[in-house]
Amino acid sequence: MISANEYFDGQVKSLGYKSETGNSTVGVMEPGEYEFGTSTHETMIVVEGEMMVKLPGETDWSTYKAGSSYQIEANQKFQVKVANQTAYLCQYK
Amino acid sequence: MISANEYFDGQVKSLGYKSETGNSTVGVMEPGEYEFGTSTHETMIVVEGEMMVKLPGETDWSTYKAGSSYQIEANQKFQVKVANQTAYLCQYK
Repeated sequence: MISANEYFDGQVKSLGYKSETGNSTVGVMEPGEYEFGTSTHETMIVVEGEMMVKLPGETDWSTYKAGSSYQIEANQKFQVKVANQTAYLCQYK
Repeated sequence: MISANEYFDGQVKSLGYKSETGNSTVGVMEPGEYEFGTSTHETMIVVEGEMMVKLPGETDWSTYKAGSSYQIEANQKFQVKVANQTAYLCQYK
């Protein structure tokens, strides 16, 4: 089953599925600034577009373009800013 | 606006958005065999999982793994088989 998810009043939408190695979502973010929280370790991969990310414990924002990725430990919060509609893959494992 | 789309009774779901270079969708396919038709040139990129594809005019199936891509001209039909839930990016331009 492919789950359809919405966050921040539809500003972020995702599709959940099972890959061969665990749970994943592909999603799209509207321009804006968001705070996400993790319950498991997550690997975020920018599929198309660009994200500015403030990783847990960091004070500076880092830019991640299409093809690049970053990792977040479980039970952490992180901030994301996007200037244009941006697509991502998130792997939960 | 992020559009949410469903095809083949929900077996294929996608999210539509505008990238800096044109229209795109990210989507997920359930295991199965599908025939798609194009109205514009499309570039399909496998994001996670694997697709077997019979390109227009071909008799053989080709396998496309995560990170690989293929192109379809406008107004063509092509067949796709997936054995596991598979995520893709489609660029329409």
